[in-house]
Amino acid sequence: MEDLDDITQPVQAGRTEIASLGEFGLIEHLTAGNILIQETSRLGPGDDAAILHYGENKDLLLSTDLLLEGIHFDLSYVPLKHLGYKAAVVNFSDICAMNGLPAQLTVSVGISKRFSVEDMEELYEGIKLACKVYGVDLIGGDTSASLTGLTLSLTCTGVVEKGQAVLRNGAKVNDLICVSGNLGAAYMGLQLLEREKMIYQGQQNFQPDFAGKEYLLQRQLRPEARKDIVEKLAQKKIRPNAMIDVSDGLSSDLLHICKQSNCGCRIFEEKLPIDFQTASLAEEMNMNLSTAALDGGEDYELLFTAALELHETIESWAEVRIIGYICHEQDGRKLITRDNTEIDIIAQGWKMA
Amino acid sequence: MEDLDDITQPVQAGRTEIASLGEFGLIEHLTAGNILIQETSRLGPGDDAAILHYGENKDLLLSTDLLLEGIHFDLSYVPLKHLGYKAAVVNFSDICAMNGLPAQLTVSVGISKRFSVEDMEELYEGIKLACKVYGVDLIGGDTSASLTGLTLSLTCTGVVEKGQAVLRNGAKVNDLICVSGNLGAAYMGLQLLEREKMIYQGQQNFQPDFAGKEYLLQRQLRPEARKDIVEKLAQKKIRPNAMIDVSDGLSSDLLHICKQSNCGCRIFEEKLPIDFQTASLAEEMNMNLSTAALDGGEDYELLFTAALELHETIESWAEVRIIGYICHEQDGRKLITRDNTEIDIIAQGWKMA
Repeated sequence: MEDLDDITQPVQAGRTEIASLGEFGLIEHLTAGNILIQETSRLGPGDDAAILHYGENKDLLLSTDLLLEGIHFDLSYVPLKHLGYKAAVVNFSDICAMNGLPAQLTVSVGISKRFSVEDMEELYEGIKLACKVYGVDLIGGDTSASLTGLTLSLTCTGVVEKGQAVLRNGAKVNDLICVSGNLGAAYMGLQLLEREKMIYQGQQNFQPDFAGKEYLLQRQLRPEARKDIVEKLAQKKIRPNAMIDVSDGLSSDLLHICKQSNCGCRIFEEKLPIDFQTASLAEEMNMNLSTAALDGGEDYELLFTAALELHETIESWAEVRIIGYICHEQDGRKLITRDNTEIDIIAQGWKMA
Repeated sequence: MEDLDDITQPVQAGRTEIASLGEFGLIEHLTAGNILIQETSRLGPGDDAAILHYGENKDLLLSTDLLLEGIHFDLSYVPLKHLGYKAAVVNFSDICAMNGLPAQLTVSVGISKRFSVEDMEELYEGIKLACKVYGVDLIGGDTSASLTGLTLSLTCTGVVEKGQAVLRNGAKVNDLICVSGNLGAAYMGLQLLEREKMIYQGQQNFQPDFAGKEYLLQRQLRPEARKDIVEKLAQKKIRPNAMIDVSDGLSSDLLHICKQSNCGCRIFEEKLPIDFQTASLAEEMNMNLSTAALDGGEDYELLFTAALELHETIESWAEVRIIGYICHEQDGRKLITRDNTEIDIIAQGWKMA
């Protein structure tokens, strides 16, 4: 994935006006050379609809996402290629959160005059790279004019064995609460980008200082969906009772599971998995590390609950951490701090701007 | 459908700020009481993805649409309920154009602060009404803040017998070219709305003059997808060789079929099906009627080609008109005018703003 590594260098390119290609020309140009690899994909872009055949043994998962400039992304520090990659991956993550594997993707783009054909090529490079990395077929979409900024709408399908999808509402009392990877890094990456943007403020030849913090940038700009965790769950014969991906933040997403499962929970501050770079930048910026891990969001890790009998299997799985357990609803939803205080878990996720 | 008939009266309602509900509150509020009726729908809104099961004998169709304020709709004369209805129907029409029946819909909405909870209720009333009329399940979607105006993203699935989808690329030499309903009415409805908007220009107590032109307004503001035609094609055992819905205009959409099928065509000006109100307003506004029928767009009628042997069956079908035939590519794509002149068919559809 070296072509996404060079995060801080803008792409230099000529400018071709989108009007010179027109809608059909542009979408044909952007999806040229598209090959379908999923056996469930029967027809890709170019007709009124795509055709899929999932057969008797599979369920189809369907998830959709709308991304608006200025709300969900800021092009002043997010290169278009990364935006495309992330937009695709965030959708794949929703499919993984159902215990499925992403299979097909449609992309619709609203484009204002500010953008050129080269810009759209860059955006699609990121989308196509994500499709390639995850083995997903690009099966449709369109482009349209927009009066203001860039609008992205993605719809992702996924495949899961019939009846094997994992919902948010299946958590049971005494279940272990488990999370993959680590938390808070994407959030600290965002803090870093915003700090450098503030310092930049129009300086010429400005070089942002990202040394030693590349992992945080990567987590913010180029997150990955935990398809590998879904595959390993199947290999290890672990069927979670409930699952969600950490997009709004651990607190908010854990509360979704608890509310929809009518249960309570206990999680332990000392068990929260946190990367060294996350901790280091939080200290440097004088921010509370646990807050970043609990409320940060955009980690796209998988948060799931599983039966207590699976303790040994999960405990020995290096990529997954047990952070607490599910309890009765009347016992509340609480974090046990390092000094053994119980505090209520509160959603800090999405708000209207 | 009387609750959509009163086109010119704005809804009077209080104003509840969207922030008072938040994202999850809003989407729960808007999708309250949602019941799934399609046997292929296994899980609706509220989790990371919807779950569908289509089984061995069916193919799934997938189509997506992005609608942006100021580009695809103008709220100065389109009530939100109509916008919701039309947005859904336009997607259903894409499914019909594949010879399928619409089954599931997801809706994502980007909302600026200008809009209230009541506005979104109105929008969703139209969407839900369309779902009810067409027997479609609302299975997902979300709402988000937007910096500018209203953004709508819809994804529709549809069901078709395995292998029975009709593409654009199957037209054969000597096929009949057929179109359902009539053409140009939606375009003349738009002309009418724009004329009245021009006259209005801030006058108080202005009453637009729509008498005797209700059909044109209905075609523009409340189009229908020709699900009935798809059902009758099956009953009459007509399997079109190629099909598309007339969204960009007859010329543009017929050219899609010809290009993708590598063939030419002849259509006859005198055969174009045109409603009396369309003709009447075109005369009143001194506009070319055939241009409206050829290039108008948004009729959402079905345009298909079928084997010559089906001539008698189709000829006796009141809702469908045979307007020409498919020929070899080297013979070109031409309209035969009333005075027997051949003119090239040129796409006048979508352009970048």
